[in-house]
Amino acid sequence: MSQYCIQLINPNTSQSMTNNMATAARAVASASTRILAVNPQSGVGSIEGHFDEAIAAVGVLQQIHQGRQQGVDGHIIACFGDPGLLAARELASGPVLGIAEAAMHLATMVSTRFSIVTTLPRTVIIARHLLQQYGFTDHCAAIRTIDLPVLSLEDSSTIAGDRIREQCHLAIQQDNSGAVVLGCGGMAGLAEQLTSELGIPVIDGVSAAVKLMESLLSLRLTTSKHGDLAYPVAKPLSGIFSDLSPV
Amino acid sequence: MSQYCIQLINPNTSQSMTNNMATAARAVASASTRILAVNPQSGVGSIEGHFDEAIAAVGVLQQIHQGRQQGVDGHIIACFGDPGLLAARELASGPVLGIAEAAMHLATMVSTRFSIVTTLPRTVIIARHLLQQYGFTDHCAAIRTIDLPVLSLEDSSTIAGDRIREQCHLAIQQDNSGAVVLGCGGMAGLAEQLTSELGIPVIDGVSAAVKLMESLLSLRLTTSKHGDLAYPVAKPLSGIFSDLSPV
Amino acid sequence: MSQYCIQLINPNTSQSMTNNMATAARAVASASTRILAVNPQSGVGSIEGHFDEAIAAVGVLQQIHQGRQQGVDGHIIACFGDPGLLAARELASGPVLGIAEAAMHLATMVSTRFSIVTTLPRTVIIARHLLQQYGFTDHCAAIRTIDLPVLSLEDSSTIAGDRIREQCHLAIQQDNSGAVVLGCGGMAGLAEQLTSELGIPVIDGVSAAVKLMESLLSLRLTTSKHGDLAYPVAKPLSGIFSDLSPV
Amino acid sequence: MSQYCIQLINPNTSQSMTNNMATAARAVASASTRILAVNPQSGVGSIEGHFDEAIAAVGVLQQIHQGRQQGVDGHIIACFGDPGLLAARELASGPVLGIAEAAMHLATMVSTRFSIVTTLPRTVIIARHLLQQYGFTDHCAAIRTIDLPVLSLEDSSTIAGDRIREQCHLAIQQDNSGAVVLGCGGMAGLAEQLTSELGIPVIDGVSAAVKLMESLLSLRLTTSKHGDLAYPVAKPLSGIFSDLSPV
Amino acid sequence: MSQYCIQLINPNTSQSMTNNMATAARAVASASTRILAVNPQSGVGSIEGHFDEAIAAVGVLQQIHQGRQQGVDGHIIACFGDPGLLAARELASGPVLGIAEAAMHLATMVSTRFSIVTTLPRTVIIARHLLQQYGFTDHCAAIRTIDLPVLSLEDSSTIAGDRIREQCHLAIQQDNSGAVVLGCGGMAGLAEQLTSELGIPVIDGVSAAVKLMESLLSLRLTTSKHGDLAYPVAKPLSGIFSDLSPV
Amino acid sequence: MSQYCIQLINPNTSQSMTNNMATAARAVASASTRILAVNPQSGVGSIEGHFDEAIAAVGVLQQIHQGRQQGVDGHIIACFGDPGLLAARELASGPVLGIAEAAMHLATMVSTRFSIVTTLPRTVIIARHLLQQYGFTDHCAAIRTIDLPVLSLEDSSTIAGDRIREQCHLAIQQDNSGAVVLGCGGMAGLAEQLTSELGIPVIDGVSAAVKLMESLLSLRLTTSKHGDLAYPVAKPLSGIFSDLSPV
Repeated sequence: MSQYCIQLINPNTSQSMTNNMATAARAVASASTRILAVNPQSGVGSIEGHFDEAIAAVGVLQQIHQGRQQGVDGHIIACFGDPGLLAARELASGPVLGIAEAAMHLATMVSTRFSIVTTLPRTVIIARHLLQQYGFTDHCAAIRTIDLPVLSLEDSSTIAGDRIREQCHLAIQQDNSGAVVLGCGGMAGLAEQLTSELGIPVIDGVSAAVKLMESLLSLRLTTSKHGDLAYPVAKPLSGIFSDLSPV
Repeated sequence: MSQYCIQLINPNTSQSMTNNMATAARAVASASTRILAVNPQSGVGSIEGHFDEAIAAVGVLQQIHQGRQQGVDGHIIACFGDPGLLAARELASGPVLGIAEAAMHLATMVSTRFSIVTTLPRTVIIARHLLQQYGFTDHCAAIRTIDLPVLSLEDSSTIAGDRIREQCHLAIQQDNSGAVVLGCGGMAGLAEQLTSELGIPVIDGVSAAVKLMESLLSLRLTTSKHGDLAYPVAKPLSGIFSDLSPV
Repeated sequence: MSQYCIQLINPNTSQSMTNNMATAARAVASASTRILAVNPQSGVGSIEGHFDEAIAAVGVLQQIHQGRQQGVDGHIIACFGDPGLLAARELASGPVLGIAEAAMHLATMVSTRFSIVTTLPRTVIIARHLLQQYGFTDHCAAIRTIDLPVLSLEDSSTIAGDRIREQCHLAIQQDNSGAVVLGCGGMAGLAEQLTSELGIPVIDGVSAAVKLMESLLSLRLTTSKHGDLAYPVAKPLSGIFSDLSPV
Repeated sequence: MSQYCIQLINPNTSQSMTNNMATAARAVASASTRILAVNPQSGVGSIEGHFDEAIAAVGVLQQIHQGRQQGVDGHIIACFGDPGLLAARELASGPVLGIAEAAMHLATMVSTRFSIVTTLPRTVIIARHLLQQYGFTDHCAAIRTIDLPVLSLEDSSTIAGDRIREQCHLAIQQDNSGAVVLGCGGMAGLAEQLTSELGIPVIDGVSAAVKLMESLLSLRLTTSKHGDLAYPVAKPLSGIFSDLSPV
Repeated sequence: MSQYCIQLINPNTSQSMTNNMATAARAVASASTRILAVNPQSGVGSIEGHFDEAIAAVGVLQQIHQGRQQGVDGHIIACFGDPGLLAARELASGPVLGIAEAAMHLATMVSTRFSIVTTLPRTVIIARHLLQQYGFTDHCAAIRTIDLPVLSLEDSSTIAGDRIREQCHLAIQQDNSGAVVLGCGGMAGLAEQLTSELGIPVIDGVSAAVKLMESLLSLRLTTSKHGDLAYPVAKPLSGIFSDLSPV
Repeated sequence: MSQYCIQLINPNTSQSMTNNMATAARAVASASTRILAVNPQSGVGSIEGHFDEAIAAVGVLQQIHQGRQQGVDGHIIACFGDPGLLAARELASGPVLGIAEAAMHLATMVSTRFSIVTTLPRTVIIARHLLQQYGFTDHCAAIRTIDLPVLSLEDSSTIAGDRIREQCHLAIQQDNSGAVVLGCGGMAGLAEQLTSELGIPVIDGVSAAVKLMESLLSLRLTTSKHGDLAYPVAKPLSGIFSDLSPV
């Protein structure tokens, strides 16, 4: 079996979140897969809106740029808004997956309709737009929130976990959903326990993306370079972006 | 690494097609995965319309029934119409994937828009309905046909292959598609060669489904038994279907 | 006026349900129309999910096959999931209608938005997919359930009737719907009484399909045999399906 | 069998067109059905755009008003744009059908996808909006035009007929459609001949609406007076519309 | 700066409502813009359904006709159902805007999702259809009603105002909407006060349409006379519509 | 009349393009409006894909940040992909408009269906996604390209202009579109001339956005700060983005 190196990009600058997601990724990766977990030096500590996403997208591109130089085989964007996904696909030679995308795809394979449980209410619109972009609007019964900021998921307290559990129960009872998609990379470690507790598939995007990426790599399917996702038109970038200039 | 047994169900009765698809499946399966390739005893020799699909769906269910008794871990429905998919998910305890579904999902991950190349013009409507059901109508630029019956793909001659190649070229030039989905299980062996020739991802559903199934199994994600896809309401089946009765 | 013979196919094996639906059909049929009510010998006693539907679809095809030999003029599939509808249209030379289809079409002609009242919650997804397939997603305000199995409708007790009435009232009050579609062939006898009680159109698919079928027959409109719904490609069927082989 | 009186409203002022459509209607009506063919005194001689439709809608309402006083059982709006349909449903106590609506509904019952053949290119947008309103956008493969004004259909020459025939052939060959909907009331007499010539269902809205209206009447299904289509709020109309005031 | 004359057409016959809307229009119009406020002599006193709209549409066309003769530069249809909009665009040489259209467009520019607050429940379906026609179905979170007739807005009492305020609060709290569109021309005067009270944009269609019309005029963008909205095909109108005949 | 300062943000770093767009903006701005034309110091010289857009979005945010400090009243993002639009709306206190958005909205007000004429084929997917996001997919008949890079529009030669003209003619003849939207900020100066030549509205986003922005400002409608577009959650930005940190 081939050895793959998958770059797991945390688009925010929180090192502890990077570490947690790396742990979740490694827990499901094949023995022969290496997870290279990174995050940008510049950016925001958590991603909780469109502004944060626009900043994080550049951080993602910088990491894609570096990852390509390091010869990684594929890239995962580990934030539920999939910031910079299409831009990253242009820049990358290998495949690129977002964790929202990965989780949503798998959810449609094990249920007819799923619910999403995310963090702050203001991120609901981002999930809604992703559903539309990926084609899954009709497959999503509801987008639920725990009304806590992203970094609360790093707390040692159980408040966030309790609220997630509560929303999952409501997804079953009120939405009649067959599966739950966890709507934040910070929830990566909770899927297996919740699946077991609730008796329905609870899907975390980080682990979903790792397995999908291994699938793409093993099938030698990579980002199409014909047309819409061809490499960026070669031209210099100036100022703070100059390190992203083509060589 | 766990050992999985994936049941690859050819919904038609053509043993040679079963063998060819098994070969394609084994070519991409992990070393620890066992592919159990089967096809129904009763049914049609090829699937080229809604009637054939309705017949084949029962064959699929019989195989799911047997596969469950044999303790397989997951089931693949290896016909591009994904016949009986939701019924199979009800009956199965493990995950079930169709090859159209599998190929379409992966195509959206490596391109913005893809074309489908299928066999007879009368099957176009089936692909169109699947795109709508899976949410990918907007991701598909065109559905193209080679205007040859399914079993022509088993011929030793190169006519079918030439026509597929021709349609792939048109997908690039006329549809401006970034990827091609091969629209028949009988085309399973051609993807890698075409990908290499054409320089864009050409995706075969059999191999796509094998890797997606390994992903689901490794993530312990299985068909949700809450709600829409719960086991069939237990009741006896009569006559020619009595072997499908619950025990 | 021409004499038509309409084959009313109950896709399940319950003879009493066949009889009840035949009564409802004959109550609205023109004097010159003959209703030939049939059900398969093999199959399930009630249809309450995708698995049951896949089994029933073959029973439908067997009846279409026989009906064609008997020279019936048109075929009605009398189960709210319209199992095997497109397959039946391929096989038939005459027109084929499903009762869900029939009821939904008429509902849009007398109201801007309607509600569906069906049996078990697990059948909601089937109605939802039919709405999408027929184009009526935006015309349906809600799908409501009485949470009772299909055969409870055969009970002499009034529980099912009471719950249907209750859901119809909620359709008016909460959904602000102008009409109700009864979501099970077993409810066929209730439409006229409920229409009178509630003061809005309550539509039963069996009677709707009979009148629509008479309309198609009288207009000499039959299933198009050009393209998507052409007769199945002629090839032998094997095993338990051999009686469906072309002659 | 009950005797029904169906009011066939030609929304334009062309008496010859009214007569032609009445002939087509009577050709398919049941023996017990009386067709009362009318047209407004005020209005336009043919309907070829939104302006004409807005004028014609009032003519339709005046006829509905009179028809109600005369005790007709149902109303047909015999112009392919279905002008004033929802307004007419508010005003009427009985059912109201448009001929575009009627033809489109039936077309979906005998084919998976149909083409429309209409008159002037500028009416295409009207058909497009109706498809969207009725839910049939995905069921229509193409809207074709003969590029002749409506009244050319009254000519004794065969130019219009030839062009319709030509577009029907293109519908089969280029659109791969299984049925054709004739997109003008003035084409009412052509359906049966074209169906026979072309070998696919060619559907005329006038005859379609007559049979659908008989179906609704026989099922005692009438316009819902709950909610959206309740009678207009009672208030006087002034000036040229005063004859439409409630009594 | 150019001087524009904008014809503000109240489609109902209520002079006081015309005056109120003229006041709202003049409050936002540029100094160089003249508002010519008119209403039909014939018609209904308020518009509360499809019937009223069909009547009002002709009144609108009469005013467009007159306005064109008077040399006005653009036309606003000041009723939330935008009655006769496309017909008016055919007849007009200048641009034509509806107030529902105007308010909805602006709402999408200052929020991701908005709520509509309208009068009677029976007008909800009209707003729903407009959203679909304009493309804003996904941008509207809810359509709310105050359950009062249009003319109650002319009352000196505060009941209507209180109910509007209440629904706006619910739009924020329950729909999580970022903006409110006022769903009746009679609410024109309330937007600024409500915006200030509620802290979110509350948009009135009359003022929105005035500014959009000035924008179109200043950009010299007028109704396209190529194709769908070309002038009506020239032909005489008879009877009560004869004053609308082409000259 | 109030004096407004509108910040016109060219998201790329080409000063000459900034100047050209400023000229187009000032040509339509009210006498009392001041156009403050800016572009980022860091970024790309032209925007021709998702990668370029992601980079440009940060430049847009930096300009919004500065513009807010300078007290500008509203912001225009003058690139046809509307890069960073929702992020900019979060950051801004005033209204923000994209030029694609502005042009598309106005196009729907003067025609039933429009065509877009843009630069490179690879930008078509961006326009397609914007149409979906704004709700105008059904209002766009075609997206056409001149197959030239953005900066070719700055050439003194007439090649780009000729190709644009050619595509506009095809939009009329082949798409039957009533209007054309120019799909690049670099085409800003061409709209008036093309409108005059072609006889249909040709809409440039820069001028459209200026007038729409004046409309919003004059109506005191600004970005809703309730919910989805509230100010970014306050937290420090690190590294190259630190100048965007909240104060």
